[in-house]
Amino acid sequence: MNATTDRERFARIALSFVAEPGDLTLGRMLSTSSPAEVFAAVCDGHPPDPPPGSAEGSGSGLARAVERWAARLGSVPTDSRLAEWERRGLRILCPGDPEWPTQLDVLGDARPLVLWVRGCADLRFACLRSASIVGARVATPYGLHVATEMAASMAERGWAVVSGGAYGIDGSAHRGALGAEGVTVAVLASGISYGYPKGHDQLFTAIAAQGCLVSEWPPDRGPTRPGFLVRNRAIAALSCGTVVVEAALRSGALSTARHARDLGRPLMAVPGPVTSSQSEGCHEIIREWNAVLVTRAQDVIEHVSPVGQGLGDRRRGPAYPRDSLDPVATAVLEAVPARAGRGPAAIAVAAGVDLDTVIGCLGALAAGGFVERCPAGWRVRKGA
Amino acid sequence: MNATTDRERFARIALSFVAEPGDLTLGRMLSTSSPAEVFAAVCDGHPPDPPPGSAEGSGSGLARAVERWAARLGSVPTDSRLAEWERRGLRILCPGDPEWPTQLDVLGDARPLVLWVRGCADLRFACLRSASIVGARVATPYGLHVATEMAASMAERGWAVVSGGAYGIDGSAHRGALGAEGVTVAVLASGISYGYPKGHDQLFTAIAAQGCLVSEWPPDRGPTRPGFLVRNRAIAALSCGTVVVEAALRSGALSTARHARDLGRPLMAVPGPVTSSQSEGCHEIIREWNAVLVTRAQDVIEHVSPVGQGLGDRRRGPAYPRDSLDPVATAVLEAVPARAGRGPAAIAVAAGVDLDTVIGCLGALAAGGFVERCPAGWRVRKGA
Repeated sequence: MNATTDRERFARIALSFVAEPGDLTLGRMLSTSSPAEVFAAVCDGHPPDPPPGSAEGSGSGLARAVERWAARLGSVPTDSRLAEWERRGLRILCPGDPEWPTQLDVLGDARPLVLWVRGCADLRFACLRSASIVGARVATPYGLHVATEMAASMAERGWAVVSGGAYGIDGSAHRGALGAEGVTVAVLASGISYGYPKGHDQLFTAIAAQGCLVSEWPPDRGPTRPGFLVRNRAIAALSCGTVVVEAALRSGALSTARHARDLGRPLMAVPGPVTSSQSEGCHEIIREWNAVLVTRAQDVIEHVSPVGQGLGDRRRGPAYPRDSLDPVATAVLEAVPARAGRGPAAIAVAAGVDLDTVIGCLGALAAGGFVERCPAGWRVRKGA
Repeated sequence: MNATTDRERFARIALSFVAEPGDLTLGRMLSTSSPAEVFAAVCDGHPPDPPPGSAEGSGSGLARAVERWAARLGSVPTDSRLAEWERRGLRILCPGDPEWPTQLDVLGDARPLVLWVRGCADLRFACLRSASIVGARVATPYGLHVATEMAASMAERGWAVVSGGAYGIDGSAHRGALGAEGVTVAVLASGISYGYPKGHDQLFTAIAAQGCLVSEWPPDRGPTRPGFLVRNRAIAALSCGTVVVEAALRSGALSTARHARDLGRPLMAVPGPVTSSQSEGCHEIIREWNAVLVTRAQDVIEHVSPVGQGLGDRRRGPAYPRDSLDPVATAVLEAVPARAGRGPAAIAVAAGVDLDTVIGCLGALAAGGFVERCPAGWRVRKGA
């Protein structure tokens, strides 16, 4: 399933333009056929031949799906259009790419086909040490305050904050992480260029400058109602655990919570006044789904960290071993001083790597807990 | 251990004047000797002879305890003093008395020696269908509001509210039950006549008129610091479950919670803003002690009711069967009409029972869920 050839890679990207994210029919087809085979079948207007012994493959459901996809073949971009998007700072990730977040593989047939990413952080690195902080769009001042504080405090401890880029709790979570000079990841329910909601344009620009924007949808695609629910599974799967800060009983944030629970990921909730309907969903999932009650970032870190780690403030080191770094990241890390701090340009010279790459690596290394910002630039994190 | 004779009864009461409530040395002695034997030993100044084969009995600890109690023999009241208290409306309950709450027996050697009670409600009946609502003295407006609402709502559903009579959450819990014309029980850490805290004099008068005041201490005894902790075990043991509404991390209310937990009684807590230190204790026991998060009276009732009962608003009947009633209560219940309602005086005539007894019985029957107040007086509760 690796994007080993340009042809397979292009077929996968093309399929992501004709099918909707989370389409299980396509997911199941890709578990037995390659993207190029499936795309060829869509172009032919007929399902691919089922593999010998397969129970599936000739149903009319498959035929209808292929027909539906074939009708959208006009939206498949040319190579030059894709190149244009990449020039404008968008990266397209496919499974097997170094930046592909392999934790998405738990989604099985519902795994994203591709991910569009914009921003300086390395998505995989960032999410290896991350928590999702999600909640209601119509939040109370209490909820916005808690989301901001919790995200800032996670970021100060070297954890990335994942959320959905929406108004309310999501926005506060992103802003809290940004304010603490941390990494934050916004998983959008629209294409990245479309950037829904529009009122968060400036926020998205700030997120791209310090973390990254992610989407399963082609760049210019607008949001759809079912798209939000589909997006929520990716938020749950990308992060090490999900915290619901405020949610009414029928809030969409509870769909993210349900995905976290169903994926076996740590699920947490922040309590609030029992007189506030915006906390009812949080109380409900603590009581009925055994979500862990958390009141501060340290509680979250303790709960999502491997057993025996994340206790108190003792643990400050990276979440994964140094020898998992690629050679370029290793070279950059070795050019980062232990105490005084050094700017990216000096690090680039010392590492023998160009400045853009250094900046990208530093974001990834910070998200991974290896390095931290200091007044003079960057230095190795204590305990790393 | 029944107070079968006046001599045993008087000895038990006398011991309650010389020893402090919760004295485990005395509790252990009473598990092998009768109150009269122990009191005689105190008067002699020597521990009673240990029973054959007992590991305990001749230690210097026992001798010191007897010496300590003997020094207070002067505080033992005369028969006429006891009679005077009873004339002033105080009842002295001993194990075996019809009104003795047998659920206290789980306390073992720490079980109260006697209970002093003032008020119209039958203590045993009331507590058979009750929950404790406890919390901080220094409470927030939020906590006071929640305690009042929850208690009122419990009372409206025919549940008695047990608390400690203190300022703050306790006071609001009592007032909420009183306001809903329900039964409430204040378990004091001072003698009932002393009535600590003094600022709750009027509240205590109202509680006695509609529920009851309870104490393990002789009527005129003031409170002591350790007395509060000793009293808390009685609150936990008397009620079917304990709810903590607001408590800082070192609040005394958590000692009641710990007793409830240790006794295996349902333990519940109301969450609050994570920005409020007065809710920290509640969040702590939800997370660390598995206290059940509750947000309203219905949650409490569901959690303390036997499995399959207490669900939604369906269950409105009594918590124990009608044939568990004594003959007088049965006669009174049969004189209560099903619909229109009837005043206590008319009920007294119909039942052939004196008015004082009818008033006492009605309180007990209401606490038990058999009858309810209505504009015209009392009627049988629907579903009872």
